[in-house]
Amino acid sequence: MSIEALEIAVIGLGAMGGGIANRLLDVGAKLTVYNRTQAATAQFVARGARAAATPAEAVKPGGIAITMVANDAALEQVTMGADGLLQGLGAGGVHISMSTISPTCATQLAARHQEAGSDWVSSPVFGRGDVAAKGQLWLAVSGGEAAKARVQPALEALGRGRTDFGSAPGAAPLAKIAGNFMILAATEMMGEAFALLQKNNVDARGFHDMITQSLFAAPIYKTYGPLILDRNFSPPGFRLVLGAKDIGLAIAAAIESQTPMPLASLVRDRLLAAMANGLGEQDVTAMTLQAAADAGLNR
Amino acid sequence: MSIEALEIAVIGLGAMGGGIANRLLDVGAKLTVYNRTQAATAQFVARGARAAATPAEAVKPGGIAITMVANDAALEQVTMGADGLLQGLGAGGVHISMSTISPTCATQLAARHQEAGSDWVSSPVFGRGDVAAKGQLWLAVSGGEAAKARVQPALEALGRGRTDFGSAPGAAPLAKIAGNFMILAATEMMGEAFALLQKNNVDARGFHDMITQSLFAAPIYKTYGPLILDRNFSPPGFRLVLGAKDIGLAIAAAIESQTPMPLASLVRDRLLAAMANGLGEQDVTAMTLQAAADAGLNR
Amino acid sequence: MSIEALEIAVIGLGAMGGGIANRLLDVGAKLTVYNRTQAATAQFVARGARAAATPAEAVKPGGIAITMVANDAALEQVTMGADGLLQGLGAGGVHISMSTISPTCATQLAARHQEAGSDWVSSPVFGRGDVAAKGQLWLAVSGGEAAKARVQPALEALGRGRTDFGSAPGAAPLAKIAGNFMILAATEMMGEAFALLQKNNVDARGFHDMITQSLFAAPIYKTYGPLILDRNFSPPGFRLVLGAKDIGLAIAAAIESQTPMPLASLVRDRLLAAMANGLGEQDVTAMTLQAAADAGLNR
Amino acid sequence: MSIEALEIAVIGLGAMGGGIANRLLDVGAKLTVYNRTQAATAQFVARGARAAATPAEAVKPGGIAITMVANDAALEQVTMGADGLLQGLGAGGVHISMSTISPTCATQLAARHQEAGSDWVSSPVFGRGDVAAKGQLWLAVSGGEAAKARVQPALEALGRGRTDFGSAPGAAPLAKIAGNFMILAATEMMGEAFALLQKNNVDARGFHDMITQSLFAAPIYKTYGPLILDRNFSPPGFRLVLGAKDIGLAIAAAIESQTPMPLASLVRDRLLAAMANGLGEQDVTAMTLQAAADAGLNR
Repeated sequence: MSIEALEIAVIGLGAMGGGIANRLLDVGAKLTVYNRTQAATAQFVARGARAAATPAEAVKPGGIAITMVANDAALEQVTMGADGLLQGLGAGGVHISMSTISPTCATQLAARHQEAGSDWVSSPVFGRGDVAAKGQLWLAVSGGEAAKARVQPALEALGRGRTDFGSAPGAAPLAKIAGNFMILAATEMMGEAFALLQKNNVDARGFHDMITQSLFAAPIYKTYGPLILDRNFSPPGFRLVLGAKDIGLAIAAAIESQTPMPLASLVRDRLLAAMANGLGEQDVTAMTLQAAADAGLNR
Repeated sequence: MSIEALEIAVIGLGAMGGGIANRLLDVGAKLTVYNRTQAATAQFVARGARAAATPAEAVKPGGIAITMVANDAALEQVTMGADGLLQGLGAGGVHISMSTISPTCATQLAARHQEAGSDWVSSPVFGRGDVAAKGQLWLAVSGGEAAKARVQPALEALGRGRTDFGSAPGAAPLAKIAGNFMILAATEMMGEAFALLQKNNVDARGFHDMITQSLFAAPIYKTYGPLILDRNFSPPGFRLVLGAKDIGLAIAAAIESQTPMPLASLVRDRLLAAMANGLGEQDVTAMTLQAAADAGLNR
Repeated sequence: MSIEALEIAVIGLGAMGGGIANRLLDVGAKLTVYNRTQAATAQFVARGARAAATPAEAVKPGGIAITMVANDAALEQVTMGADGLLQGLGAGGVHISMSTISPTCATQLAARHQEAGSDWVSSPVFGRGDVAAKGQLWLAVSGGEAAKARVQPALEALGRGRTDFGSAPGAAPLAKIAGNFMILAATEMMGEAFALLQKNNVDARGFHDMITQSLFAAPIYKTYGPLILDRNFSPPGFRLVLGAKDIGLAIAAAIESQTPMPLASLVRDRLLAAMANGLGEQDVTAMTLQAAADAGLNR
Repeated sequence: MSIEALEIAVIGLGAMGGGIANRLLDVGAKLTVYNRTQAATAQFVARGARAAATPAEAVKPGGIAITMVANDAALEQVTMGADGLLQGLGAGGVHISMSTISPTCATQLAARHQEAGSDWVSSPVFGRGDVAAKGQLWLAVSGGEAAKARVQPALEALGRGRTDFGSAPGAAPLAKIAGNFMILAATEMMGEAFALLQKNNVDARGFHDMITQSLFAAPIYKTYGPLILDRNFSPPGFRLVLGAKDIGLAIAAAIESQTPMPLASLVRDRLLAAMANGLGEQDVTAMTLQAAADAGLNR
């Protein structure tokens, strides 16, 4: 089935959800959009999308819904709340959940979909809004095989690649959380290394240059390193409070599965310190200011 | 000046020093070799090198010496001890120090060279022995400008790239130490992430595959990840006890400069636990067995 | 008002609640008891108490209720659930909450009491069941002044001392949580110190003896030290899983108030490791086996 | 043998060594004193002590020497350096080492004494200078049985109690180090608990009052707690930089014996942060300002 033939509801039009909606419009999908504050829908309506007043109305029975919202609670609201999308989805409909949520939430909501005769596919994404708009996300996918097959054109339109984590609804969300843990840990790592170099008057930019041409030649280090070195924390690409939410998800999963993760704990304490010191609305890389402050480097 | 015209002494013929010596022979340098246990010199003599009985004899007055030994103490011994290389080096000679040593040691030895009219260039390397043999190391370089210029042909023969950290002898050694800290931290990061996934029956190999095609597409994750996932710790590529030595250098530098590095502390405690549990002679990635053990995963 | 004149409902008859009930019977109070599993009430009925079928029935309108249950959820259930005690308490009734709960839960339930015209006093306790039975608990108290005055005879009967944390319902619960954090941190501290001594063949018992006669001459060290040294973890005085619950409360409060507590994080990771290694039902001091295991000491 | 009959040299007349000298004078011992800067000897000469120009001269052959100096290096200097005390001590003389030093240093120096026919007794102490002056220290003792018996009158004069750690010279020093680790960990513990309470506007003084009447009713909490709550860090009772030295000894012993001590690592990073932020010359309890700063509490 081609993407042009698909009718898709996109629920949640923040930076990420908006990027997704624009990409789907680019490739010719028939789109209905919903956002908690309606003003956000205008730009998509201008491109031919239909705006719905509720999640339930956004979804065509037996159709496809993509959600991209802030957290477990928001997803439960747009899915199971009054006028939630599950009411409209019906038999044969598929809900592709792209938000960063807890595996537990995914598992529970998937069960509710099954009871309602609908399907659930977990598909959290790696990449920011501009990457989404270009269809260059990386998707971690898990869920029933038939449902995954059905939504494949949509997933293909959005991602330059995807990894299938099998049928358990909680699997892809956990992989997403583990990935975000690694992003935050990599940030802490650079924060400490740069502080050590700067405190010793050794060129941290040269160091960054060196490692990103050799062992650490990866996007996360190439992208985040300069933000840290330039203290370019505002406007934020990814707000620090959201990083704190994500490490909270990692630690909750760690507790539930009895997996001690001291590095995750360290990252969380750093993020808490950053928030307590007024950095919550800056870019997540501003957490490195705490390692600098501990070293007595000027803020 | 071309590399063929250079006469170079290579002191220390372990895996790394041996790779360096072979590379220099490949590109046509005139080589003298020295090793604490003389048997190691045979293969290089067979290829045309001269073997010396002492470091002092290995070095031609005014020539170039490259050292690659285990630690500060060994370097002090081959440099300043009885029949140490500094005796032979003389005015205009240059000592290129490639071992992973403390910045303090580099600074002190550089001062002794200056007193003796000799030059010192710090040039610790990233890469293993086989990489050295192909001339594909990455070199962190610091020292006097004239000396660095003079040894440039040798450095070019050994590395696919290098980063200049200025004139302070301790600068490049600190950059090397900071880099090794990052390697160990990346290992811990993977250890915790994989443990979380495995404890939840989510495919850790799929996860590794995913991140190394996206945000973490870097050699360190591509190389170390499979070692961890396969528990392929023996024979070791880099012995765990040497990782412990390196994190010790990082923490010593952190203490000296009053730079708190909690992630370095975490890594050290992991390595200590690994050694206490008999893993010291395995590959450094075996430190991840401790995160697994903490999570109750079978060893 | 004397204690004999008081009619009190005790809800929750575990080791702690049972000790409280027995103490109140000892001093002559008129008691009604309730427990989720009714069998636990028999021994108190035999001593003259009345057994109630529901929390609501246990409480006399305008009377006093003491709750001692497992956690926030259990307290919400016996208070606000069907047949919850708030229905029976009515105007002028006072609910003394002695469980270890979150400050948030205390604050919310106190508000519900106020709406219902009832009073709320937070009074979590330090001490175990046998200490409660002797009226030797220490009580952290907070709540409205009038209500605290009214229940003073009951608090006096139960504790050898108490500390007033003012009027905020959440204050005493937070003090209790902070105290439990200190207990767990003191346990970790001993675990590491003893491991260091034992690994070096230095007499850890002599050490414990020394410190508890000098700087650390306090009940927590005198009581927990021998449990650790004798590995006397079963039957548990305080189950490890409950310690994990308590450190969870501390960290939740830390997150909510943006207070980084790395020592609390360390304790939590230890407790998680202990649970993952099968120690959850042993005494909380069994968490020290993890420090011992990390040091390679025989379990 | 009575204390009056003993001739004792006290080497090192700082706050602690001075207290020890005064106490020995009080109980009638014949004293010779030595200090690196001679001015410090005047007050003891005024009380009848003899001042010596070198450690060697201070010691009577076959006599008793007590040392109380800053660290391993200082002790090696006064013992083995030019005019060191070992030269004067001779056969049958006993050196009582009371400084806080590494077990390794104690073991090595004890061996040198044995070679010289002299005896070594490790006897580090718990308590400050004023406590020493009253003979109320607690002594951790280890060394040869005969030597310990011979110096018993001196030890009795100085301490209200002592704990014998057997014959290994390194045993008592390790116990002292483990004790100091506990002191610093208790300080961190209070720092975090108080920060949590203060951030939530709960009375930290009331909390301190409560715990020091119950589970934590011990000198360390009673003494250090008010210093923290009053931010009474200057003049220092025990300088923060010395606390950093002591935790360094603990971690060095931990590394040597492969004993991971994450709480010790946490304390060290706190002390480093405090030094980097200018608190090194304040009281060690000033380390708690870092937990407060992380929580965004005003300094």
